[in-house]
Amino acid sequence: NSYFKIAVLPGDGIGPEVVNESIKILDAVAEVFQVKFQFSYGLMGAEAIFKTGDPLPEDTLKICKDSDAVLFGAIGDPVFDNNPDAKVRPEQGLLKLRKELGLYANIRPLKTYASLIDKSPLKREIIEGTDIQIFRELVSGIYFGEKFTDPDGKYAYDVCKYSTGDIIPIAHMAFKEAQKRKKKLTLIDKANVLDTSRLWRKICQKIAPQYPDVQLDYIFVDNAAMQLVLNPRQFDVILTENMFGDIISDEASVIGGSIGLLPSASIGEENALFEPIHGSYPQAKGKGIANPVASILSTAMMLDYLELPEAADKLRRAVEHSIENRYVTVDLNAQQHYTTGEVGSFIADYI
Amino acid sequence: NSYFKIAVLPGDGIGPEVVNESIKILDAVAEVFQVKFQFSYGLMGAEAIFKTGDPLPEDTLKICKDSDAVLFGAIGDPVFDNNPDAKVRPEQGLLKLRKELGLYANIRPLKTYASLIDKSPLKREIIEGTDIQIFRELVSGIYFGEKFTDPDGKYAYDVCKYSTGDIIPIAHMAFKEAQKRKKKLTLIDKANVLDTSRLWRKICQKIAPQYPDVQLDYIFVDNAAMQLVLNPRQFDVILTENMFGDIISDEASVIGGSIGLLPSASIGEENALFEPIHGSYPQAKGKGIANPVASILSTAMMLDYLELPEAADKLRRAVEHSIENRYVTVDLNAQQHYTTGEVGSFIADYI
Ligand SMILES: CC(C)[C@H](C(=O)O)[C@@H](O)C(=O)O
Ligand SMILES: CC(C)[C@H](C(=O)O)[C@@H](O)C(=O)O
Repeated sequence: NSYFKIAVLPGDGIGPEVVNESIKILDAVAEVFQVKFQFSYGLMGAEAIFKTGDPLPEDTLKICKDSDAVLFGAIGDPVFDNNPDAKVRPEQGLLKLRKELGLYANIRPLKTYASLIDKSPLKREIIEGTDIQIFRELVSGIYFGEKFTDPDGKYAYDVCKYSTGDIIPIAHMAFKEAQKRKKKLTLIDKANVLDTSRLWRKICQKIAPQYPDVQLDYIFVDNAAMQLVLNPRQFDVILTENMFGDIISDEASVIGGSIGLLPSASIGEENALFEPIHGSYPQAKGKGIANPVASILSTAMMLDYLELPEAADKLRRAVEHSIENRYVTVDLNAQQHYTTGEVGSFIADYI
Repeated sequence: NSYFKIAVLPGDGIGPEVVNESIKILDAVAEVFQVKFQFSYGLMGAEAIFKTGDPLPEDTLKICKDSDAVLFGAIGDPVFDNNPDAKVRPEQGLLKLRKELGLYANIRPLKTYASLIDKSPLKREIIEGTDIQIFRELVSGIYFGEKFTDPDGKYAYDVCKYSTGDIIPIAHMAFKEAQKRKKKLTLIDKANVLDTSRLWRKICQKIAPQYPDVQLDYIFVDNAAMQLVLNPRQFDVILTENMFGDIISDEASVIGGSIGLLPSASIGEENALFEPIHGSYPQAKGKGIANPVASILSTAMMLDYLELPEAADKLRRAVEHSIENRYVTVDLNAQQHYTTGEVGSFIADYI
């Protein structure tokens, strides 16, 4: 295949700026690798609420369903965060999109870059050589269970529910990834308290014999939150449910020295979405200081998904080249730094 | 008051060893401060299951209810962790005890010790001067909501429920503590996704005007997990629900350099329980290497609660003295170290 339909959802805050750099990269990739990307833009998040009243307009959903892959920027706006009574919120758009596209596996690779290790709050000897792949379940659990607030505001509840069918596919995916790597899979749960966690443990135990070369470990989420900082190298592939994955993967993002570097892929049977881990960072909007690397590395994950591994590798080398040459945004070098657009162009030129 | 009934629950793993040192300390305190402690021992956890089939026998509960305070060691045994089908688990004992005694507020102070800063996986400049007090709600939320596993094992759920009455008392407690400190309270939640989190936010917003000198902030739990490692000094008093508190407070325990130092108090209207944050650490059982300081500092929190502030202060100074003089267990100094009992005796002697 050499023709790809890409849905582009810039979203809120710095989203449009960083996605813009990914488009630049894809234009370069198209030229060098003789492929064609057709971009369709859609509104989403706070931007979409302001313009249409809906955080995920029908049009946007349609564009995404028709696409080969979705490039997404960021979502969220403080206007909504500080108003617990808001009926419509930007995040609903993202959650609905994940659900509608069936993006059940959120994959976050974590690595350290030699030249950035000293930016981490963690000591060099703790993080050096860390290489983790997190698989977070993305369309079930407490995010999507029944929610209720009593009209008098006297109580509220959220239900965390998991069925075997929600767990089995992502568990296989994680086992398979572990086979390609250090053959170690760690399930993070709270099986000493939660029924849903015990279901996760049972299913993983049952599947394990199909991957006899993979060592399966379990760790309680509280201990995992500690171990990730004490000794991150003990982890190879991590598998976990939606809410724990949200917390643990954000925590883990400090290992590499900057959240501005971290990409993610959200994969379903028929669709896939690629987005940086960082949020909309509204304070930085429009200033040209946002780090485009997380979005660009998400684009590399997209190229892998589209079965363009050579382009993906080239792009990753380009990013490494820019980092090793200190051609970076202000978050990575306060003394000498470049704008979002300059870093994007530098990487595109390398390609 | 100069006569106190103390329920003692040594529990599993290293629990008995560290609680033993707390008793030594209390004997010294009794002598010096002219008070009397009467100790009643109870079975709890895996030990209790092995001996009686019940992780919290009626006897134990009765001893606790009749006491002025409960000293607790640790709970948990790998026999149960790796068996998702076990019907009876040690943790049920602890959860039931918390519920029966109405221990709604789990309080965890976090500080750095000058002589131990270099033990932390985090850099000195990140953690130096950190001083945080965490308030974790302890008897509601997903821990105690309805749980269900379908008999065919096809699905399971756990309900996270909060009523205003579960939140208001601990919120006031946290605001009051903030008034005594740096006047900054941070609520950790996931209000962009969960109804229960929005209830927490609303209640805190409503209560805030009663504490006009306290600045109330909100932070999403994923971001909090990141910020705690990036810049822990930004926090003063933290307030959060049960499950987030479990994760966040264990993560935060790495700041001080050793989880072996961290105490906790669980407070209710009529009862209180004091326990180290660390678990039962079964690999260390019976080796004399467990650090007794977390249990001893939990005892100091108990002395405060029993309105013996001079004894509590003296005990804290004794602990500081032992740490500054490197009279510590192996976790804090691999070269020269002392046994659990030696460290306990050193601290008791100072008193
Ligand atoms: C924006 C929010 C709903 C989302 C989540 O919690 O899943 C974000 O934190 C993420 O991790 O992608
Ligand atoms: C043992 C376990 C049930 C308990 C909890 O999760 O509350 C422990 O981790 C704690 O934090 O006291």
